[in-house]
Amino acid sequence: MKPRLLCPGPTPAPEETLLELARPVTFHRSAQFRAVVKEVTEDLGKVFGTKQPVMTITASGTGAMEAATSNLLVPGGKAICLISGRWGERWRGLCKAFGVTAIEITVPYGEAVPPSALEKALAEHPDATVVFSTLSETATGVVNDIQGYAAITRNRPQVLVVDGISGLGVMPCPMDEWGVDVVVTGSQKALMLPPGLAFIALSEKAWKVVEANYALPNPPRTFYFDLRKYRDNLKGNDTPFTPANTLVKALRLSLKRLLEEGLENCYRRHARMAAAARAAAQGLGMELLAKTPSNGLTVFKVPAGVDGQAILGVLEKEHGIRIAGGQDVLKGKILRLAHMGYIDFFEVLAAVSALELALPKFGHAVTPGEAVAACQKAYTATA
Amino acid sequence: MKPRLLCPGPTPAPEETLLELARPVTFHRSAQFRAVVKEVTEDLGKVFGTKQPVMTITASGTGAMEAATSNLLVPGGKAICLISGRWGERWRGLCKAFGVTAIEITVPYGEAVPPSALEKALAEHPDATVVFSTLSETATGVVNDIQGYAAITRNRPQVLVVDGISGLGVMPCPMDEWGVDVVVTGSQKALMLPPGLAFIALSEKAWKVVEANYALPNPPRTFYFDLRKYRDNLKGNDTPFTPANTLVKALRLSLKRLLEEGLENCYRRHARMAAAARAAAQGLGMELLAKTPSNGLTVFKVPAGVDGQAILGVLEKEHGIRIAGGQDVLKGKILRLAHMGYIDFFEVLAAVSALELALPKFGHAVTPGEAVAACQKAYTATA
Repeated sequence: MKPRLLCPGPTPAPEETLLELARPVTFHRSAQFRAVVKEVTEDLGKVFGTKQPVMTITASGTGAMEAATSNLLVPGGKAICLISGRWGERWRGLCKAFGVTAIEITVPYGEAVPPSALEKALAEHPDATVVFSTLSETATGVVNDIQGYAAITRNRPQVLVVDGISGLGVMPCPMDEWGVDVVVTGSQKALMLPPGLAFIALSEKAWKVVEANYALPNPPRTFYFDLRKYRDNLKGNDTPFTPANTLVKALRLSLKRLLEEGLENCYRRHARMAAAARAAAQGLGMELLAKTPSNGLTVFKVPAGVDGQAILGVLEKEHGIRIAGGQDVLKGKILRLAHMGYIDFFEVLAAVSALELALPKFGHAVTPGEAVAACQKAYTATA
Repeated sequence: MKPRLLCPGPTPAPEETLLELARPVTFHRSAQFRAVVKEVTEDLGKVFGTKQPVMTITASGTGAMEAATSNLLVPGGKAICLISGRWGERWRGLCKAFGVTAIEITVPYGEAVPPSALEKALAEHPDATVVFSTLSETATGVVNDIQGYAAITRNRPQVLVVDGISGLGVMPCPMDEWGVDVVVTGSQKALMLPPGLAFIALSEKAWKVVEANYALPNPPRTFYFDLRKYRDNLKGNDTPFTPANTLVKALRLSLKRLLEEGLENCYRRHARMAAAARAAAQGLGMELLAKTPSNGLTVFKVPAGVDGQAILGVLEKEHGIRIAGGQDVLKGKILRLAHMGYIDFFEVLAAVSALELALPKFGHAVTPGEAVAACQKAYTATA
């Protein structure tokens, strides 16, 4: 059976990227590798939409989230966490670990945090110094209004931090243009690389906060995630620690592919795949969870009485299609179909087709062809 | 020109490992991947010589060093750092970042820290709770007497932490047998994988210190490196964060290769390569820097008046041989020839041959064949 991966991370990597990973290992302190670091950093800057250096950290995406938290805040600090799901909750968990008071602005799963809620929170907590947010909430498939948040924070002292892990490269989030202060992302989503690298960029405003924190008598306690080290080494196109250099060399190829497609085309492709996936909902007899859906994944609510985990099993065992279920309290209750990075429309169509084949086994009747036709129609309409 | 990598990390990876890295990306929350995690963790336990869980962290080796520091100590704590070079100095840097007083026991470059120095330091600083050490000091090619340190700490309250990054899998360091409390290593040395993964295991004694620290009013401030998360997830063969899963799957193959060779055979192979490399010194007219040399790399002192960096350039440009130079104050003054992991004797011979070819260009006369013959003789004698 032919396997197809449509999970919201890790996502598939292009063939040329995978083949690069099979090439012999090379030394990382060399002119050749510095040239790769230079090129990758410049290309990441285009994806981030920033003139600031985009730093590459060998870590999971959470590592870059920790770098943001530990460099921007010290114990006793206060931050506002805009929470629309599990990944927003991660910011809260990071605040707790770092002794930071987290003001939680939480919305029900499926909803986005409105900018007005941030406005209100800032009025109530003017002493909060950081706002943590999530571009694409991978747990619910919701996209949050980052531009709206930035419009509020850009003329205030607060630093706006965005978890862009499953959103950057999928939907616009131009850091400098919108006035976003910090963006973090990971390698294994729209950047079309296996997991292992995380990325982070800071605005001038954010760097000032970081520098001030390190000048405190009780400065940030971190060595591996000390962002000043990454920034300073990048001036010589170098890294502070032995980087996952084979991944960095492979990233170069994935970024080339992304930028050859063009950012606008890439966003449009994701929007079309998303429109197609959402259009399948009616034919599949399932509702969408997200009220403001992300273009990176579509989340279907599993019909009452049907075990979502069992559907995943049938999709994988009988059709080779790997999509994701829900996490924590959403486990068994939702299906998460990713359409980002190197996943294309025809794979989305295949996944919808497999759902049409599988759902009747669970007593959930569908009209064969209705969902795939709706998919095709929506994709055609957005051409 | 055929490239050959003989740097002390990253080292070459076996072909089957590289090819695994080119396979399609898969989902990490699956029975298949949990089986890989289980197998890899068991195999790592054999290499570490411990029944404790060996935890895999997506990070450079320094990430695991940070995990040890941040989990075992809190600001205001005191640790003894046994420093025989740049990598021992890294422990000092970590202590500083975490607000820990570092008692430095430093020896000149090329020497090992004698266990008697630890004995003395502990008598003077009985309030130190952690001892940081280095198995193979990659900066100078020195091996330290970890067994000797452990004999001192095993019946005392202090926790012995070993940086095994370029030593584990090269020379014996059986954690449980010797009574070592914490061992950290990285993927890119004797474990024959590209960089990107770090590993750490803790004795029961060390775990007790960690648990006590997290129960403090001012506990360790870390989320990504909270070792309890890794340990607890491992019980279900899972990971707390998205792991670099393609590297983990490739590691499985490198570990199989290592264990099929057998640990004792592997140590013996490294000892023979090391004997051969050291034997080349006389013929090359260069002294060894290390008084107690590591079996993972051999460090030659560059003859007076010769620029070591220039030798590196000739080796690489004219012969495709990549060895390493010195770092910091040793830059230009030493040559570091690695013989670890997937590097074999014939590559060591090639590097020695290239040195015989290159050195005369720098006014340093050698008798062609003398060094390679000595190499061959030593390798034969240790068969």
